[in-house]
Amino acid sequence: MTGGRKDGRAALTPPAGESPVIVLVRPQMARNIGSTARAMANGGLFHLRIVAPRDGWPQPDAYPAASGADAILDAAQVFDSVPAAVADCHRVLATCPRPRHIVIPVHTARAAAEDLRAIAARNLRAAVLFGPERAGLENEDMACADTLVRYPLNPAHMSLNLAQAVMILAYEWWTAAEATPPRALMTNETRVATKGELDIFLNRLVAELDATGFLDTAEKRPGMVRNLRHWFERGEVTEQELRTLHGVVTELSRGRMRRGRPETPDPPLPWTDPA
Amino acid sequence: MTGGRKDGRAALTPPAGESPVIVLVRPQMARNIGSTARAMANGGLFHLRIVAPRDGWPQPDAYPAASGADAILDAAQVFDSVPAAVADCHRVLATCPRPRHIVIPVHTARAAAEDLRAIAARNLRAAVLFGPERAGLENEDMACADTLVRYPLNPAHMSLNLAQAVMILAYEWWTAAEATPPRALMTNETRVATKGELDIFLNRLVAELDATGFLDTAEKRPGMVRNLRHWFERGEVTEQELRTLHGVVTELSRGRMRRGRPETPDPPLPWTDPA
Repeated sequence: MTGGRKDGRAALTPPAGESPVIVLVRPQMARNIGSTARAMANGGLFHLRIVAPRDGWPQPDAYPAASGADAILDAAQVFDSVPAAVADCHRVLATCPRPRHIVIPVHTARAAAEDLRAIAARNLRAAVLFGPERAGLENEDMACADTLVRYPLNPAHMSLNLAQAVMILAYEWWTAAEATPPRALMTNETRVATKGELDIFLNRLVAELDATGFLDTAEKRPGMVRNLRHWFERGEVTEQELRTLHGVVTELSRGRMRRGRPETPDPPLPWTDPA
Repeated sequence: MTGGRKDGRAALTPPAGESPVIVLVRPQMARNIGSTARAMANGGLFHLRIVAPRDGWPQPDAYPAASGADAILDAAQVFDSVPAAVADCHRVLATCPRPRHIVIPVHTARAAAEDLRAIAARNLRAAVLFGPERAGLENEDMACADTLVRYPLNPAHMSLNLAQAVMILAYEWWTAAEATPPRALMTNETRVATKGELDIFLNRLVAELDATGFLDTAEKRPGMVRNLRHWFERGEVTEQELRTLHGVVTELSRGRMRRGRPETPDPPLPWTDPA
Protein backbone atom coordinates (compact mmCIF):
# COMPACT_ATOMS: atom_id res chain seq x y z
CA MET A 1 0.00 0.00 0.00
CA THR A 2 1.46 3.33 -0.94
CA GLY A 3 0.28 6.88 -1.08
CA GLY A 4 1.10 10.34 0.13
CA ARG A 5 3.55 12.51 -1.73
CA LYS A 6 4.94 11.16 -4.98
CA ASP A 7 8.55 11.60 -3.83
CA GLY A 8 7.88 9.51 -0.74
CA ARG A 9 8.78 12.43 1.51
CA ALA A 10 5.76 13.53 3.42
CA ALA A 11 5.86 17.00 4.94
CA LEU A 12 5.93 15.83 8.54
CA THR A 13 5.82 18.38 11.31
CA PRO A 14 5.06 18.02 15.01
CA PRO A 15 1.30 18.08 15.62
CA ALA A 16 -0.05 21.08 17.49
CA GLY A 17 -0.34 20.63 21.25
CA GLU A 18 0.77 17.55 23.14
CA SER A 19 0.92 14.16 21.49
CA PRO A 20 2.37 10.94 22.86
CA VAL A 21 6.11 10.40 22.96
CA ILE A 22 7.26 7.02 21.69
CA VAL A 23 10.21 5.75 23.75
CA LEU A 24 12.29 2.92 22.28
CA VAL A 25 14.17 1.32 25.15
CA ARG A 26 17.57 -0.12 24.19
CA PRO A 27 16.61 -0.81 20.55
CA GLN A 28 19.03 -3.05 18.71
CA MET A 29 18.45 -2.64 14.97
CA ALA A 30 18.73 0.72 13.21
CA ARG A 31 16.23 -0.55 10.66
CA ASN A 32 13.64 -1.04 13.37
CA ILE A 33 14.12 2.53 14.57
CA GLY A 34 13.48 3.67 11.01
CA SER A 35 10.41 1.43 10.65
CA THR A 36 9.15 2.80 13.94
CA ALA A 37 9.39 6.36 12.58
CA ARG A 38 7.45 5.27 9.50
CA ALA A 39 4.72 3.69 11.62
CA MET A 40 4.58 6.81 13.81
CA ALA A 41 4.13 8.96 10.72
CA ASN A 42 1.34 6.65 9.52
CA GLY A 43 -0.50 7.22 12.77
CA GLY A 44 0.20 10.94 13.15
CA LEU A 45 2.76 10.59 15.96
CA PHE A 46 5.95 12.64 15.88
CA HIS A 47 7.96 12.60 19.12
CA LEU A 48 10.56 9.83 19.28
CA ARG A 49 12.95 9.21 22.16
CA ILE A 50 15.60 6.52 22.19
CA VAL A 51 17.08 5.10 25.38
CA ALA A 52 20.61 3.67 25.08
CA PRO A 53 20.44 2.45 21.45
CA ARG A 54 22.77 -0.52 21.09
CA ASP A 55 24.63 0.92 18.11
CA GLY A 56 24.47 4.61 19.04
CA TRP A 57 22.58 7.38 17.32
CA PRO A 58 22.16 8.68 14.64
CA GLN A 59 22.45 5.59 12.46
CA PRO A 60 22.29 5.95 8.68
CA ASP A 61 20.57 2.56 8.30
CA ALA A 62 17.48 3.92 10.02
CA TYR A 63 16.63 6.35 7.23
CA PRO A 64 15.79 3.99 4.33
CA ALA A 65 13.37 2.10 6.59
CA ALA A 66 11.67 5.35 7.60
CA SER A 67 10.31 5.67 4.06
CA GLY A 68 10.17 9.46 4.15
CA ALA A 69 9.57 9.99 7.85
CA ASP A 70 13.06 11.49 8.14
CA ALA A 71 11.84 14.49 10.13
CA ILE A 72 10.88 12.16 12.99
CA LEU A 73 14.37 10.61 13.03
CA ASP A 74 16.03 14.03 12.76
CA ALA A 75 14.09 15.24 15.81
CA ALA A 76 14.62 12.07 17.87
CA GLN A 77 16.17 12.58 21.30
CA VAL A 78 18.58 10.16 22.97
CA PHE A 79 18.67 9.41 26.70
CA ASP A 80 20.80 7.22 28.95
CA SER A 81 17.95 5.81 31.01
CA VAL A 82 14.18 5.39 31.04
CA PRO A 83 13.72 7.74 34.04
CA ALA A 84 15.64 10.46 32.17
CA ALA A 85 13.58 9.87 29.01
CA VAL A 86 10.26 10.26 30.82
CA ALA A 87 11.25 12.90 33.37
CA ASP A 88 9.13 15.62 31.71
CA CYS A 89 6.14 13.31 31.07
CA HIS A 90 2.99 13.25 33.18
CA ARG A 91 2.00 9.70 32.33
CA VAL A 92 4.01 6.67 31.27
CA LEU A 93 2.52 3.64 29.55
CA ALA A 94 4.57 0.51 28.92
CA THR A 95 3.83 -2.09 26.28
CA CYS A 96 4.17 -5.57 27.69
CA PRO A 97 2.84 -8.80 26.22
CA ARG A 98 3.51 -11.02 29.20
CA PRO A 99 2.00 -10.98 32.67
CA ARG A 100 4.65 -10.10 35.22
CA HIS A 101 4.83 -10.03 38.97
CA ILE A 102 3.44 -6.58 39.01
CA VAL A 103 0.23 -4.90 40.04
CA ILE A 104 -0.69 -2.13 37.68
CA PRO A 105 -3.61 -1.19 35.45
CA VAL A 106 -3.39 -2.95 32.09
CA HIS A 107 -5.16 -1.59 29.03
CA THR A 108 -5.72 -2.88 25.54
CA ALA A 109 -4.16 -0.79 22.75
CA ARG A 110 -7.59 0.66 22.03
CA ALA A 111 -8.25 1.72 25.61
CA ALA A 112 -4.70 3.07 25.82
CA ALA A 113 -5.29 5.18 22.71
CA GLU A 114 -8.46 6.62 24.24
CA ASP A 115 -6.51 7.44 27.39
CA LEU A 116 -3.72 9.01 25.35
CA ARG A 117 -6.25 11.22 23.56
CA ALA A 118 -7.75 12.28 26.89
CA ILE A 119 -4.28 12.99 28.32
CA ALA A 120 -3.32 15.09 25.29
CA ALA A 121 -6.62 16.95 25.48
CA ARG A 122 -5.64 18.04 29.00
CA ASN A 123 -2.34 19.24 27.52
CA LEU A 124 -0.40 16.66 29.51
CA ARG A 125 2.48 14.69 28.05
CA ALA A 126 2.37 10.90 27.88
CA ALA A 127 5.18 8.52 26.98
CA VAL A 128 4.76 4.98 25.69
CA LEU A 129 7.66 2.58 26.29
CA PHE A 130 8.59 -0.16 23.84
CA GLY A 131 11.22 -2.69 24.85
CA PRO A 132 14.16 -4.06 22.89
CA GLU A 133 13.50 -6.49 20.05
CA ARG A 134 14.39 -9.73 21.77
CA ALA A 135 13.73 -9.41 25.46
CA GLY A 136 11.08 -6.73 25.81
CA LEU A 137 11.03 -4.32 28.73
CA GLU A 138 12.63 -5.28 32.01
CA ASN A 139 10.85 -5.06 35.33
CA GLU A 140 12.92 -2.01 36.21
CA ASP A 141 11.71 -0.22 33.05
CA MET A 142 8.13 -1.08 33.89
CA ALA A 143 8.51 0.33 37.37
CA CYS A 144 8.58 3.74 35.62
CA ALA A 145 5.17 3.12 34.09
CA ASP A 146 1.78 3.83 35.61
CA THR A 147 -0.13 1.74 33.08
CA LEU A 148 0.63 -1.34 30.99
CA VAL A 149 -0.56 -1.81 27.43
CA ARG A 150 -1.19 -5.36 26.33
CA TYR A 151 -2.42 -6.00 22.82
CA PRO A 152 -5.12 -8.59 22.32
CA LEU A 153 -3.37 -10.99 19.95
CA ASN A 154 -3.17 -14.71 19.25
CA PRO A 155 -1.69 -16.27 22.39
CA ALA A 156 -0.22 -19.04 20.22
CA HIS A 157 1.94 -16.44 18.45
CA MET A 158 2.39 -13.22 20.39
CA SER A 159 5.87 -12.41 19.09
CA LEU A 160 5.50 -8.97 17.56
CA ASN A 161 8.07 -7.07 15.55
CA LEU A 162 9.04 -3.78 17.25
CA ALA A 163 7.72 -1.59 14.44
CA GLN A 164 4.54 -3.68 14.29
CA ALA A 165 3.97 -2.99 17.97
CA VAL A 166 4.41 0.74 17.37
CA MET A 167 2.20 0.52 14.28
CA ILE A 168 -0.74 -0.89 16.22
CA LEU A 169 -0.50 1.82 18.86
CA ALA A 170 -0.09 4.56 16.24
CA TYR A 171 -3.03 3.16 14.28
CA GLU A 172 -5.23 3.13 17.39
CA TRP A 173 -4.06 6.66 18.26
CA TRP A 174 -5.12 7.91 14.85
CA THR A 175 -8.34 5.88 14.83
CA ALA A 176 -9.33 7.20 18.28
CA ALA A 177 -9.77 10.65 16.73
CA GLU A 178 -10.87 9.53 13.30
CA ALA A 179 -14.22 10.57 11.93
CA THR A 180 -14.14 8.27 8.90
CA PRO A 181 -17.44 6.42 8.73
CA PRO A 182 -16.78 2.69 9.15
CA ARG A 183 -18.81 1.95 6.05
CA ALA A 184 -19.21 4.28 3.09
CA LEU A 185 -19.71 4.21 -0.64
CA MET A 186 -16.70 5.39 -2.56
CA THR A 187 -18.01 7.77 -5.19
CA ASN A 188 -15.08 10.01 -5.95
CA GLU A 189 -15.19 11.86 -9.27
CA THR A 190 -18.83 11.00 -9.56
CA ARG A 191 -21.88 11.42 -7.34
CA VAL A 192 -25.00 9.53 -6.47
CA ALA A 193 -27.66 10.21 -9.11
CA THR A 194 -30.83 12.00 -8.09
CA LYS A 195 -34.06 10.07 -8.22
CA GLY A 196 -35.15 12.45 -11.00
CA GLU A 197 -32.16 11.48 -13.12
CA LEU A 198 -32.88 7.83 -12.46
CA ASP A 199 -36.50 8.41 -13.45
CA ILE A 200 -35.51 9.91 -16.79
CA PHE A 201 -33.41 6.87 -17.49
CA LEU A 202 -36.05 4.37 -16.38
CA ASN A 203 -38.74 6.07 -18.46
CA ARG A 204 -36.47 6.00 -21.46
CA LEU A 205 -35.64 2.34 -20.89
CA VAL A 206 -39.29 1.39 -20.63
CA ALA A 207 -40.06 3.35 -23.80
CA GLU A 208 -37.31 1.53 -25.67
CA LEU A 209 -38.49 -1.82 -24.38
CA ASP A 210 -42.03 -0.94 -25.43
CA ALA A 211 -40.65 -0.18 -28.88
CA THR A 212 -39.01 -3.61 -29.08
CA GLY A 213 -42.21 -5.29 -28.10
CA PHE A 214 -40.52 -6.78 -25.07
CA LEU A 215 -43.25 -5.39 -22.79
CA ASP A 216 -46.08 -6.23 -25.18
CA THR A 217 -47.92 -8.65 -22.90
CA ALA A 218 -50.46 -6.30 -21.34
CA GLU A 219 -51.07 -8.23 -18.14
CA LYS A 220 -47.36 -8.77 -17.44
CA ARG A 221 -46.18 -5.24 -18.26
CA PRO A 222 -46.86 -3.52 -14.90
CA GLY A 223 -45.01 -6.22 -12.94
CA MET A 224 -42.07 -6.22 -15.31
CA VAL A 225 -41.73 -2.44 -15.19
CA ARG A 226 -41.96 -2.52 -11.41
CA ASN A 227 -39.23 -5.18 -11.23
CA LEU A 228 -37.02 -3.05 -13.45
CA ARG A 229 -37.59 -0.06 -11.18
CA HIS A 230 -36.83 -2.05 -8.05
CA TRP A 231 -33.64 -3.33 -9.57
CA PHE A 232 -32.32 0.12 -10.42
CA GLU A 233 -33.60 1.82 -7.28
CA ARG A 234 -32.09 -0.74 -4.96
CA GLY A 235 -28.58 0.68 -4.57
CA GLU A 236 -27.22 4.15 -4.97
CA VAL A 237 -26.81 4.47 -8.73
CA THR A 238 -24.21 7.09 -9.58
CA GLU A 239 -24.48 9.77 -12.22
CA GLN A 240 -21.53 8.14 -14.03
CA GLU A 241 -23.24 4.76 -14.05
CA LEU A 242 -26.44 6.34 -15.38
CA ARG A 243 -24.52 7.82 -18.29
CA THR A 244 -23.08 4.40 -19.04
CA LEU A 245 -26.54 2.87 -18.88
CA HIS A 246 -27.92 5.51 -21.24
CA GLY A 247 -25.11 4.57 -23.60
CA VAL A 248 -26.00 0.89 -23.36
CA VAL A 249 -29.65 1.61 -24.19
CA THR A 250 -28.65 3.85 -27.07
CA GLU A 251 -26.38 1.19 -28.54
CA LEU A 252 -28.93 -1.58 -28.12
CA SER A 253 -31.64 0.56 -29.71
CA ARG A 254 -29.44 1.49 -32.65
CA GLY A 255 -28.64 -2.16 -33.23
CA ARG A 256 -32.34 -2.98 -33.22
CA MET A 257 -33.10 -0.15 -35.63
CA ARG A 258 -30.26 -1.20 -37.91
CA ARG A 259 -31.35 -4.80 -37.93
CA GLY A 260 -35.04 -4.09 -37.88
CA ARG A 261 -37.12 -5.96 -35.37
CA PRO A 262 -35.75 -9.51 -35.24
CA GLU A 263 -37.98 -12.47 -36.06
CA THR A 264 -37.01 -14.21 -32.85
CA PRO A 265 -36.76 -11.96 -29.83
CA ASP A 266 -33.31 -11.22 -28.38
CA PRO A 267 -32.52 -13.10 -25.19
CA PRO A 268 -33.82 -11.17 -22.19
CA LEU A 269 -31.55 -8.38 -20.99
CA PRO A 270 -29.74 -9.40 -17.79
CA TRP A 271 -31.55 -6.79 -15.72
CA THR A 272 -35.06 -7.79 -16.73
CA ASP A 273 -35.21 -10.68 -14.30
CA PRO A 274 -33.83 -9.37 -11.06
CA ALA A 275 -35.49 -12.21 -9.14
CA MET B 1 7.83 -7.38 22.24
CA THR B 2 8.21 -11.09 22.34
CA GLY B 3 6.34 -14.00 23.78
CA GLY B 4 4.80 -17.31 22.84
CA ARG B 5 6.89 -20.46 22.89
CA LYS B 6 10.46 -20.15 24.07
CA ASP B 7 11.84 -21.64 20.85
CA GLY B 8 10.03 -19.02 18.78
CA ARG B 9 8.09 -21.70 16.93
CA ALA B 10 4.44 -21.44 17.78
CA ALA B 11 2.28 -24.45 17.11
CA LEU B 12 0.26 -22.86 14.32
CA THR B 13 -2.58 -24.78 12.80
CA PRO B 14 -5.49 -23.67 10.62
CA PRO B 15 -8.33 -22.36 12.76
CA ALA B 16 -11.52 -24.41 12.77
CA GLY B 17 -14.12 -23.35 10.22
CA GLU B 18 -13.65 -20.61 7.66
CA SER B 19 -11.26 -17.74 8.27
CA PRO B 20 -10.17 -15.05 5.84
CA VAL B 21 -7.65 -15.82 3.11
CA ILE B 22 -4.88 -13.24 2.77
CA VAL B 23 -3.95 -12.77 -0.89
CA LEU B 24 -0.63 -11.08 -1.67
CA VAL B 25 -0.84 -9.84 -5.24
CA ARG B 26 2.50 -9.79 -7.09
CA PRO B 27 4.61 -9.35 -3.94
CA GLN B 28 8.21 -8.37 -4.61
CA MET B 29 10.25 -9.10 -1.47
CA ALA B 30 10.47 -12.57 0.08
CA ARG B 31 11.07 -10.90 3.45
CA ASN B 32 7.71 -9.16 3.21
CA ILE B 33 5.97 -12.45 2.52
CA GLY B 34 7.59 -13.82 5.67
CA SER B 35 6.64 -10.74 7.71
CA THR B 36 3.10 -11.11 6.41
CA ALA B 37 2.97 -14.68 7.73
CA ARG B 38 4.20 -13.46 11.11
CA ALA B 39 1.54 -10.74 11.23
CA MET B 40 -1.12 -13.28 10.21
CA ALA B 41 -0.04 -15.57 13.04
CA ASN B 42 -0.22 -12.64 15.49
CA GLY B 43 -3.82 -12.05 14.49
CA GLY B 44 -4.90 -15.68 14.26
CA LEU B 45 -5.08 -15.85 10.46
CA PHE B 46 -3.68 -18.86 8.62
CA HIS B 47 -4.59 -19.05 4.92
CA LEU B 48 -2.07 -17.34 2.63
CA ARG B 49 -2.29 -17.16 -1.15
CA ILE B 50 0.33 -15.57 -3.36
CA VAL B 51 -0.40 -14.30 -6.87
CA ALA B 52 2.55 -14.22 -9.27
CA PRO B 53 5.34 -13.56 -6.75
CA ARG B 54 8.12 -11.65 -8.49
CA ASP B 55 10.86 -14.06 -7.43
CA GLY B 56 8.83 -17.29 -7.47
CA TRP B 57 7.85 -19.47 -4.56
CA PRO B 58 8.94 -20.92 -2.17
CA GLN B 59 11.71 -18.49 -1.25
CA PRO B 60 14.07 -19.31 1.63
CA ASP B 61 14.39 -15.61 2.60
CA ALA B 62 10.75 -15.57 3.67
CA TYR B 63 11.28 -17.93 6.60
CA PRO B 64 13.53 -15.89 8.92
CA ALA B 65 11.09 -12.96 8.68
CA ALA B 66 8.19 -15.24 9.60
CA SER B 67 9.64 -15.60 13.11
CA GLY B 68 8.18 -19.04 13.66
CA ALA B 69 5.08 -18.78 11.50
CA ASP B 70 6.58 -21.35 9.13
CA ALA B 71 3.41 -23.41 8.97
CA ILE B 72 1.64 -20.53 7.25
CA LEU B 73 4.38 -20.27 4.61
CA ASP B 74 4.46 -24.05 4.15
CA ALA B 75 0.71 -24.08 3.47
CA ALA B 76 0.73 -21.01 1.18
CA GLN B 77 -0.78 -21.52 -2.26
CA VAL B 78 0.45 -19.85 -5.44
CA PHE B 79 -1.78 -18.65 -8.29
CA ASP B 80 -1.21 -17.03 -11.67
CA SER B 81 -3.95 -14.43 -11.38
CA VAL B 82 -6.26 -12.76 -8.89
CA PRO B 83 -9.40 -14.35 -10.39
CA ALA B 84 -7.83 -17.79 -10.00
CA ALA B 85 -6.80 -17.00 -6.41
CA VAL B 86 -10.30 -15.97 -5.37
CA ALA B 87 -12.32 -18.39 -7.50
CA ASP B 88 -13.49 -20.42 -4.49
CA CYS B 89 -14.19 -17.37 -2.31
CA HIS B 90 -17.62 -15.91 -1.67
CA ARG B 91 -16.46 -12.39 -0.87
CA VAL B 92 -13.40 -10.42 -1.92
CA LEU B 93 -12.15 -7.36 -0.08
CA ALA B 94 -9.32 -5.24 -1.48
CA THR B 95 -7.10 -2.95 0.55
CA CYS B 96 -6.65 0.37 -1.19
CA PRO B 97 -5.39 3.59 0.36
CA ARG B 98 -6.23 5.87 -2.52
CA PRO B 99 -9.59 6.84 -3.97
CA ARG B 100 -9.89 5.49 -7.50
CA HIS B 101 -12.33 5.91 -10.31
CA ILE B 102 -14.49 3.20 -8.91
CA VAL B 103 -17.82 2.93 -7.20
CA ILE B 104 -17.79 0.30 -4.50
CA PRO B 105 -18.47 0.11 -0.77
CA VAL B 106 -15.42 1.16 1.22
CA HIS B 107 -14.93 0.05 4.82
CA THR B 108 -12.45 0.91 7.51
CA ALA B 109 -10.26 -1.93 8.74
CA ARG B 110 -12.47 -2.20 11.81
CA ALA B 111 -15.71 -2.46 9.85
CA ALA B 112 -14.05 -4.90 7.45
CA ALA B 113 -13.02 -7.11 10.38
CA GLU B 114 -16.59 -7.13 11.66
CA ASP B 115 -17.77 -8.12 8.19
CA LEU B 116 -15.13 -10.82 7.96
CA ARG B 117 -16.28 -12.27 11.28
CA ALA B 118 -19.88 -12.25 10.08
CA ILE B 119 -18.88 -13.89 6.79
CA ALA B 120 -16.89 -16.61 8.58
CA ALA B 121 -19.81 -17.18 10.97
CA ARG B 122 -21.95 -18.01 7.92
CA ASN B 123 -19.23 -20.48 6.89
CA LEU B 124 -18.47 -18.46 3.77
CA ARG B 125 -14.93 -17.83 2.55
CA ALA B 126 -13.59 -14.30 2.23
CA ALA B 127 -10.35 -13.17 0.61
CA VAL B 128 -8.52 -9.92 1.33
CA LEU B 129 -6.24 -8.60 -1.42
CA PHE B 130 -3.02 -6.74 -0.69
CA GLY B 131 -1.15 -5.14 -3.58
CA PRO B 132 2.56 -5.15 -4.37
CA GLU B 133 4.93 -3.07 -2.24
CA ARG B 134 5.43 -0.10 -4.52
CA ALA B 135 2.37 0.35 -6.66
CA GLY B 136 -0.50 -1.19 -4.73
CA LEU B 137 -3.35 -2.98 -6.45
CA GLU B 138 -4.23 -2.18 -10.03
CA ASN B 139 -7.72 -1.28 -11.16
CA GLU B 140 -8.04 -4.71 -12.78
CA ASP B 141 -7.28 -6.40 -9.44
CA MET B 142 -9.85 -4.27 -7.70
CA ALA B 143 -12.48 -5.20 -10.25
CA CYS B 144 -12.41 -8.64 -8.58
CA ALA B 145 -13.36 -7.11 -5.23
CA ASP B 146 -16.83 -6.39 -3.90
CA THR B 147 -15.60 -4.16 -1.06
CA LEU B 148 -12.64 -1.88 -0.53
CA VAL B 149 -10.81 -1.54 2.78
CA ARG B 150 -9.24 1.82 3.48
CA TYR B 151 -7.39 2.31 6.75
CA PRO B 152 -7.90 5.56 8.58
CA LEU B 153 -4.31 6.86 8.72
CA ASN B 154 -2.43 10.14 8.57
CA PRO B 155 -3.09 11.51 5.05
CA ALA B 156 0.30 13.26 5.21
CA HIS B 157 2.01 9.87 5.38
CA MET B 158 -0.14 7.01 4.13
CA SER B 159 2.70 4.87 2.79
CA LEU B 160 2.34 1.59 4.65
CA ASN B 161 4.70 -1.36 4.60
CA LEU B 162 3.03 -4.50 3.20
CA ALA B 163 3.35 -6.48 6.42
CA GLN B 164 2.13 -3.46 8.42
CA ALA B 165 -0.99 -3.38 6.26
CA VAL B 166 -1.59 -7.09 6.90
CA MET B 167 -0.82 -6.56 10.61
CA ILE B 168 -3.55 -3.96 11.03
CA LEU B 169 -6.13 -6.17 9.37
CA ALA B 170 -5.02 -9.24 11.35
CA TYR B 171 -5.09 -7.20 14.56
CA GLU B 172 -8.61 -5.98 13.84
CA TRP B 173 -9.68 -9.52 12.92
CA TRP B 174 -8.44 -10.82 16.27
CA THR B 175 -9.82 -7.83 18.18
CA ALA B 176 -13.27 -8.23 16.60
CA ALA B 177 -13.68 -11.50 18.53
CA GLU B 178 -11.64 -10.52 21.57
CA ALA B 179 -13.19 -10.60 25.00
CA THR B 180 -10.27 -8.89 26.76
CA PRO B 181 -11.65 -6.07 28.89
CA PRO B 182 -10.22 -2.78 27.59
CA ARG B 183 -9.15 -1.80 31.09
CA ALA B 184 -8.18 -4.21 33.83
CA LEU B 185 -5.91 -4.48 36.83
CA MET B 186 -3.05 -6.88 36.33
CA THR B 187 -2.90 -8.93 39.49
CA ASN B 188 -1.36 -12.17 38.40
CA GLU B 189 0.16 -14.26 41.16
CA THR B 190 -1.75 -12.15 43.65
CA ARG B 191 -5.35 -11.05 44.17
CA VAL B 192 -7.24 -7.99 45.24
CA ALA B 193 -7.45 -7.88 49.03
CA THR B 194 -10.84 -8.12 50.72
CA LYS B 195 -12.12 -5.13 52.60
CA GLY B 196 -11.84 -7.21 55.76
CA GLU B 197 -8.12 -7.79 55.16
CA LEU B 198 -7.68 -4.10 54.50
CA ASP B 199 -9.55 -3.32 57.70
CA ILE B 200 -7.23 -5.51 59.75
CA PHE B 201 -4.26 -3.66 58.32
CA LEU B 202 -5.76 -0.21 58.82
CA ASN B 203 -6.71 -0.96 62.42
CA ARG B 204 -3.22 -2.20 63.10
CA LEU B 205 -1.69 0.87 61.46
CA VAL B 206 -3.85 3.21 63.51
CA ALA B 207 -2.93 1.32 66.69
CA GLU B 208 0.76 1.63 65.89
CA LEU B 209 0.39 5.32 65.10
CA ASP B 210 -1.49 5.77 68.39
CA ALA B 211 1.43 4.09 70.14
CA THR B 212 3.89 6.51 68.55
CA GLY B 213 1.81 9.43 69.67
CA PHE B 214 1.44 10.52 66.03
CA LEU B 215 -2.35 10.64 66.44
CA ASP B 216 -2.20 12.20 69.91
CA THR B 217 -4.01 15.40 69.03
CA ALA B 218 -7.55 14.49 70.00
CA GLU B 219 -9.39 16.92 67.75
CA LYS B 220 -7.29 16.05 64.66
CA ARG B 221 -7.31 12.27 65.14
CA PRO B 222 -10.66 11.43 63.46
CA GLY B 223 -9.79 13.44 60.33
CA MET B 224 -6.32 11.94 60.08
CA VAL B 225 -7.61 8.39 60.46
CA ARG B 226 -10.26 9.10 57.83
CA ASN B 227 -7.64 10.44 55.42
CA LEU B 228 -5.55 7.32 55.94
CA ARG B 229 -8.56 5.12 55.23
CA HIS B 230 -9.43 7.06 52.10
CA TRP B 231 -5.89 6.77 50.81
CA PHE B 232 -5.79 3.00 51.21
CA GLU B 233 -9.35 2.38 50.07
CA ARG B 234 -8.98 4.44 46.91
CA GLY B 235 -7.54 1.78 44.62
CA GLU B 236 -7.69 -1.97 44.66
CA VAL B 237 -5.03 -2.95 47.16
CA THR B 238 -3.77 -6.44 46.55
CA GLU B 239 -3.16 -9.12 49.09
CA GLN B 240 0.55 -9.01 48.15
CA GLU B 241 0.72 -5.27 48.73
CA LEU B 242 -1.02 -5.64 52.08
CA ARG B 243 1.61 -8.14 53.20
CA THR B 244 4.31 -5.67 52.17
CA LEU B 245 2.55 -2.91 54.09
CA HIS B 246 2.26 -5.08 57.18
CA GLY B 247 6.00 -5.63 56.88
CA VAL B 248 6.64 -1.91 56.63
CA VAL B 249 4.58 -1.26 59.77
CA THR B 250 6.33 -4.09 61.61
CA GLU B 251 9.77 -2.76 60.68
CA LEU B 252 8.91 0.81 61.59
CA SER B 253 7.42 -0.29 64.92
CA ARG B 254 10.46 -2.42 65.76
CA GLY B 255 12.72 0.54 65.00
CA ARG B 256 10.68 2.69 67.32
CA MET B 257 10.74 0.06 70.06
CA ARG B 258 14.48 -0.46 69.66
CA ARG B 259 15.19 3.24 69.76
CA GLY B 260 12.50 4.04 72.30
CA ARG B 261 10.24 6.92 71.48
CA PRO B 262 12.45 9.58 69.87
CA GLU B 263 12.80 13.02 71.40
CA THR B 264 12.00 14.66 68.10
CA PRO B 265 9.26 12.93 66.11
CA ASP B 266 10.18 11.09 62.91
CA PRO B 267 9.25 12.90 59.72
CA PRO B 268 5.67 12.03 58.73
CA LEU B 269 5.30 8.77 56.83
CA PRO B 270 4.72 9.39 53.14
CA TRP B 271 1.17 8.02 53.31
CA THR B 272 0.03 10.15 56.23
CA ASP B 273 -0.57 13.20 54.06
CA PRO B 274 -2.33 11.92 50.95
CA ALA B 275 -3.73 15.39 50.11
